[in-house]
Amino acid sequence: MRIALLGGTGDLGEGLALRLMRDTDHEVVVGSRDPEKARDRAAAYEDELAGRGIDTKINGFANPMAADRADVAIACVPAYHLADTIEAVADSLDDTPLVSPAVGMQRDEGVMQYNPPGVGSVTALAADAAPAGVPVVGAFHGLAAGRLADLDSDLGWDVPVIGDDDGAKATVTDLVDAIDGLRGLDAGPLAAAPAVESLTPLLINVAASNDDLADLGVHFT
Amino acid sequence: MRIALLGGTGDLGEGLALRLMRDTDHEVVVGSRDPEKARDRAAAYEDELAGRGIDTKINGFANPMAADRADVAIACVPAYHLADTIEAVADSLDDTPLVSPAVGMQRDEGVMQYNPPGVGSVTALAADAAPAGVPVVGAFHGLAAGRLADLDSDLGWDVPVIGDDDGAKATVTDLVDAIDGLRGLDAGPLAAAPAVESLTPLLINVAASNDDLADLGVHFT
Repeated sequence: MRIALLGGTGDLGEGLALRLMRDTDHEVVVGSRDPEKARDRAAAYEDELAGRGIDTKINGFANPMAADRADVAIACVPAYHLADTIEAVADSLDDTPLVSPAVGMQRDEGVMQYNPPGVGSVTALAADAAPAGVPVVGAFHGLAAGRLADLDSDLGWDVPVIGDDDGAKATVTDLVDAIDGLRGLDAGPLAAAPAVESLTPLLINVAASNDDLADLGVHFT
Repeated sequence: MRIALLGGTGDLGEGLALRLMRDTDHEVVVGSRDPEKARDRAAAYEDELAGRGIDTKINGFANPMAADRADVAIACVPAYHLADTIEAVADSLDDTPLVSPAVGMQRDEGVMQYNPPGVGSVTALAADAAPAGVPVVGAFHGLAAGRLADLDSDLGWDVPVIGDDDGAKATVTDLVDAIDGLRGLDAGPLAAAPAVESLTPLLINVAASNDDLADLGVHFT
């Protein structure tokens, strides 16, 4: 498959690009509002992989071109850029599954708190912004980006996957499972997004409160 | 220490009583609104342990007497009984740490959703109901009660612990750690309760969506 990492020039995009290229046979395309930045970062990811003896080609494009002909598009952007990013690629998506990993949080009384938008969840915000016919799937929420991008780090993380389109959800779950150390788990329909998105502030609060813990993920057992 | 399980006649009380008696040197007292029910259940817990070759004594009392002289009181009741239960034992608590494991949830659009009370969290509700000077600690949220009460089940679960009183939080964390297969983890002050309580609907939704998963807990890694 061709995986488009929209806004894939940040930490999450880097981690997903490196691990997808190392662990799977999928093609990865990096998107950005600025195509030159996309090309620069794609080249940097290639260099990182080349340094590990993995010879690969990653293209960088403006987001709409990255989304074009993608089999899965992952919006690797903060919640406040999500609607704009989706609208910018709307004409390229057709019926491509669109993955939303973003979470809304705010710091309040010294801790991170879940702070969903008015529509109930960030995943719902993505679904509202997506064109009709584009199945939106929530996944990859709250992955500690530094550890994700560190290919020496073993993850052992579960990734809850939510959505109303079973086919798109299965495609994304398979994609998660293809990355070493990640297990995709069905966590219900889009309506279950708040429970999934709320996990991220918990992970941050636990890491902040324990000197010996950092960059946490979760394993359900 | 003497551990009072207020409303300890249900699933959570049973699981905590059995594991505390099996794994620790603490004394466990079962409380209930109905002292006869408390005595009956305490005897049933003794029988369960005796069947495993563990000879022990568990007393059952009305909740106020169970709380009296307890070193830690755990309110093993649903959220909608929490305030009443705390008020009934208020004169017995003095400065005894009071543990709140309850979570507020509702089923909506086919999935479990976090549904906190107006004060922001169930743990905050417990803190509001507790007398001045009683430190309230949130812990043991969302433990799959059936598995907790099955002494043949290995748990491997992390238990987020929240509270504003560091001493009480340390006492409760030690208590969690003393149970085989549980690890207590500081998850911040009481203000961090919503992120902790929100984990329970996620665990329920993941278990409901995967045929091969049930009675889930969480491990941070």
